[in-house]
Amino acid sequence: MKRKVILDCDPGHDDAISIILAASQISPLQIEAITTVAGNVEVEKCTYNALNVCEMIGLDVPVAEGAAKPLKGGPVTAGDFHGESGLDGPELPTIPTKGPVEQHAVDLIIEKALQTEQKITLVPTGPLTNIASALIKEPGIKKNIEEIVLMGGGTFGNWTPAAEFNIWVDAEAAKHVFESGIPITMFGLDVTHQALADRKIMDMVAAVDHPVAQFVFELLEFFSKTYKDVFNFEAGPIHDACTAMYLIEPDIFECRHVHVDVETSGEYTTGMTSVDLLGVTKKEPNVHFAVDLDKEKFWNVFEKALRSYVD
Amino acid sequence: MKRKVILDCDPGHDDAISIILAASQISPLQIEAITTVAGNVEVEKCTYNALNVCEMIGLDVPVAEGAAKPLKGGPVTAGDFHGESGLDGPELPTIPTKGPVEQHAVDLIIEKALQTEQKITLVPTGPLTNIASALIKEPGIKKNIEEIVLMGGGTFGNWTPAAEFNIWVDAEAAKHVFESGIPITMFGLDVTHQALADRKIMDMVAAVDHPVAQFVFELLEFFSKTYKDVFNFEAGPIHDACTAMYLIEPDIFECRHVHVDVETSGEYTTGMTSVDLLGVTKKEPNVHFAVDLDKEKFWNVFEKALRSYVD
Amino acid sequence: MKRKVILDCDPGHDDAISIILAASQISPLQIEAITTVAGNVEVEKCTYNALNVCEMIGLDVPVAEGAAKPLKGGPVTAGDFHGESGLDGPELPTIPTKGPVEQHAVDLIIEKALQTEQKITLVPTGPLTNIASALIKEPGIKKNIEEIVLMGGGTFGNWTPAAEFNIWVDAEAAKHVFESGIPITMFGLDVTHQALADRKIMDMVAAVDHPVAQFVFELLEFFSKTYKDVFNFEAGPIHDACTAMYLIEPDIFECRHVHVDVETSGEYTTGMTSVDLLGVTKKEPNVHFAVDLDKEKFWNVFEKALRSYVD
Amino acid sequence: MKRKVILDCDPGHDDAISIILAASQISPLQIEAITTVAGNVEVEKCTYNALNVCEMIGLDVPVAEGAAKPLKGGPVTAGDFHGESGLDGPELPTIPTKGPVEQHAVDLIIEKALQTEQKITLVPTGPLTNIASALIKEPGIKKNIEEIVLMGGGTFGNWTPAAEFNIWVDAEAAKHVFESGIPITMFGLDVTHQALADRKIMDMVAAVDHPVAQFVFELLEFFSKTYKDVFNFEAGPIHDACTAMYLIEPDIFECRHVHVDVETSGEYTTGMTSVDLLGVTKKEPNVHFAVDLDKEKFWNVFEKALRSYVD
Repeated sequence: MKRKVILDCDPGHDDAISIILAASQISPLQIEAITTVAGNVEVEKCTYNALNVCEMIGLDVPVAEGAAKPLKGGPVTAGDFHGESGLDGPELPTIPTKGPVEQHAVDLIIEKALQTEQKITLVPTGPLTNIASALIKEPGIKKNIEEIVLMGGGTFGNWTPAAEFNIWVDAEAAKHVFESGIPITMFGLDVTHQALADRKIMDMVAAVDHPVAQFVFELLEFFSKTYKDVFNFEAGPIHDACTAMYLIEPDIFECRHVHVDVETSGEYTTGMTSVDLLGVTKKEPNVHFAVDLDKEKFWNVFEKALRSYVD
Repeated sequence: MKRKVILDCDPGHDDAISIILAASQISPLQIEAITTVAGNVEVEKCTYNALNVCEMIGLDVPVAEGAAKPLKGGPVTAGDFHGESGLDGPELPTIPTKGPVEQHAVDLIIEKALQTEQKITLVPTGPLTNIASALIKEPGIKKNIEEIVLMGGGTFGNWTPAAEFNIWVDAEAAKHVFESGIPITMFGLDVTHQALADRKIMDMVAAVDHPVAQFVFELLEFFSKTYKDVFNFEAGPIHDACTAMYLIEPDIFECRHVHVDVETSGEYTTGMTSVDLLGVTKKEPNVHFAVDLDKEKFWNVFEKALRSYVD
Repeated sequence: MKRKVILDCDPGHDDAISIILAASQISPLQIEAITTVAGNVEVEKCTYNALNVCEMIGLDVPVAEGAAKPLKGGPVTAGDFHGESGLDGPELPTIPTKGPVEQHAVDLIIEKALQTEQKITLVPTGPLTNIASALIKEPGIKKNIEEIVLMGGGTFGNWTPAAEFNIWVDAEAAKHVFESGIPITMFGLDVTHQALADRKIMDMVAAVDHPVAQFVFELLEFFSKTYKDVFNFEAGPIHDACTAMYLIEPDIFECRHVHVDVETSGEYTTGMTSVDLLGVTKKEPNVHFAVDLDKEKFWNVFEKALRSYVD
Repeated sequence: MKRKVILDCDPGHDDAISIILAASQISPLQIEAITTVAGNVEVEKCTYNALNVCEMIGLDVPVAEGAAKPLKGGPVTAGDFHGESGLDGPELPTIPTKGPVEQHAVDLIIEKALQTEQKITLVPTGPLTNIASALIKEPGIKKNIEEIVLMGGGTFGNWTPAAEFNIWVDAEAAKHVFESGIPITMFGLDVTHQALADRKIMDMVAAVDHPVAQFVFELLEFFSKTYKDVFNFEAGPIHDACTAMYLIEPDIFECRHVHVDVETSGEYTTGMTSVDLLGVTKKEPNVHFAVDLDKEKFWNVFEKALRSYVD
């Protein structure tokens, strides 16, 4: 029986890659739905992009639009990181022929969590607004959520010195999720900055003879350029894709079971995930925190996933 | 054409009285729905109480259950203020024969706000969780909300030295509502502590020969005793009822148009409404803040409303 | 034996009046020193004004200059409230012939507190920077401080909706003082706004035939005008003078023994004194909080103090 | 002309080593004074330890006792890290024959900073209470302070997940210092955790035939054991000694000129130094932040310093 997941995302280059991996032939996942949330770009663009990616890779699942802004304050976007469309770079060969479902993302998450006999796994790769809203609206869903596998946070930041973008955008929502008691596996910057798609990797991707691989290549090209321009990184880290990679092959990652708190009231540190690696807080661990990845395994599985589209 | 309202409440003695006034024959209001929220007691009890009050006064409107807890943190109740049931005191003559509607309060609020050609007025007399959740989920409803007429806050507190109970329970939600740009009329402790149902008033109520008035009398009796025991007040203030009274007869109240902020990050003051009566912040007014009520008018209208049940 | 006091102030019209009352013939106080602190105006001006007032009334005590800015952040002044000089209005007949002592205010406070066999009373009528700094530098002085009689705070604000100027300027220092365990008697806006020098009072002052009374009259005239212009008050409240009045004649005031916390981390409420008048915090009282004054007694004693300069 | 420094410290094993290095024959420093501050242990113990170290190494400089507790809140100590005495481990061969000077540390710092024609460098290796207090009391000293070379903070913590001990103990003081505009060179955990005195280093120290080296050896032995027991480190990091090492030989370290803020209002992150290594804040750099050290150079200079006692 495949593991049921909802991909809650704000595509976004790395979100798109994550969807592509999760939907590949080697994936042990059954994607129940894709839900979108304002983050990298406005939620309407995220929805459009999600639909477009689905169309392109032939993934037929409900796409539901979610929160247009965080629990607190107005909408925020990641500026130029993903370009005007949120998926700048590739020429998208198609225009989505399907629209999103009527249902709000939050209600779809609640419905899927309530109806399932098999528990569901949530995979947020954007701000945690939808997830927190679902937990606020229907606390009873907790017991049906097997795990939350998320990209966000870390022991350092990229949007402020202390905070990573996804958590920073909706720190209140993140606090909600991290304090929910649901098992969490967390891919923060400590590990996603190890998932660098350098030139060699890009050549490997380019060598896969399939439009999906070509699409991934173009995403990587744009994203690498952004990271070079803004942060002077030699390659782009495919943050969000760590979640799909973990769900396909957990052994790629080394995780530590630690306590993580989310700061919501700091003058300079709001949106920071305080990760207790030294065990100084003596608090019960609530997060499996990825500290390391095996690069060779990572890119091997990555290549296999792309090649599975060819077969 | 009657003014359309949704009563969002946590009955609660004074919530119950407010419903009774709003549903009276002299009321210019069309009650579209009653929505409930965790506050004085657990949300299930609030829903039961709302249904019971409706049954008793013959009010046939949808009752939708809402948030079981505030946006942040776990559920809170007002302890002994309203007794175990939330409506301790009166023997409720009936058991509600109708249940709540399926729809979640938040979705009902959104639906009513979206569908109406006539704008809707929201009348929250509990924590603002439902209202904020609706605004978060569907920001587009703002333009269809005529006014939010609420009980909460004030220049001083009753739950902490600085914070009134409704705002304190869900300060994040309150911040959301006060910063929404929707016109707000606010009945805080400054004015609700003037709406004291003393012995003379209770005699007046007792003299109205109708079961609804008898019910109100018993509510007042219990509530007065609580206020005597806890705060040594000589009479019980019927806080929430100020909202209905204002909607029936605005002239009872003197309001000032001022700026109000909601504190969410204080060590001692979280949940406080900072009311700029002296104009020192120079910020644009966002609230009509009730500072005074005409006692004679207030109780005259109150009596008329109760007597309208007799006729 | 007279009660030993240090007047820690930022003159300031009402500080000046407070000094004049404390130094009057009817006063039971022995003024050990005057220390100055940045507040209404820059500390150098406060020192100059203190020296000038001493010269004028023939008070020969050490004047020591203190903190030029609060514990946190840069210097703040009360803008136009006291005019450019801090004592605008009266033509000061003299130029001070004495300068301040070499010693820093903080060290003078510590020295006086350590050396005295008789305990000392501190009377701050400006921000609490010097007092807190002394307690930080030499915690051992606590046991030699009989009482801190201060003007500051209240259940509402004048500088922000929640905070009074003196506490707002140095909330950190105030927190320090309020948590010190030293007995505190506090004159906040609740009571100082009852000490209004209206036209009748000003006539009474004018009728006292002495240059000091004339000086007080001119101070009142300027201050009344400010309060009329800025807050539309019909008369100026002589805030700081409440401390001296209380030390001369405690019976003028009704105080309640309650718990007071100082907010230092609010978004809108920093500098607020959270006064637990309803006893909801269940915390041990740490402050005698003045809630009321007997106007007749107040102005009678005030007049006697001024007339004592004539005799 | 030797560079004038004041060592402001809370010895503490690594403070003691730092003093020994700074006072060695190869040091280009003229130690004007040692000032003590509550931190690793109570301030009285720090003073005793400082005097003892001076006696032992024949360093004749004024030792002045400073703050017994941080600007905010009560005293804190580093628990078992340095043992009961603050310098547990070595048998101190002597009892200090000299006491501290009368003057308070804060006043000594101010005096030294004001009188000098040559600017002074402050070298705090404990909480920043004394330094901040001096800046609060006499802001004019800023222009006479050449540099503040401090141990504290980092991009991660050791006392909480986010905060290093020295900054955590007195975050308010740290904020004051970091916002002062004085040039700061900062040795945080990022670099001090590279200064690990492992077995090989300890052998090298043991091989230096001099009581001072023997003393250092015993300090290292105790400290290593603590770090092994508490944090499971294979060797003890001699945090504070990085300051002296830098002052002797700046080339050992690689620093980056970046902006650093100190968090004072976080729920989980108070005491954190937010170090903007990616330049995302766009704020003016205020700190030379040590990111790396050349291990070989470091221990070579360290050995030379110890051997200089022999000669």
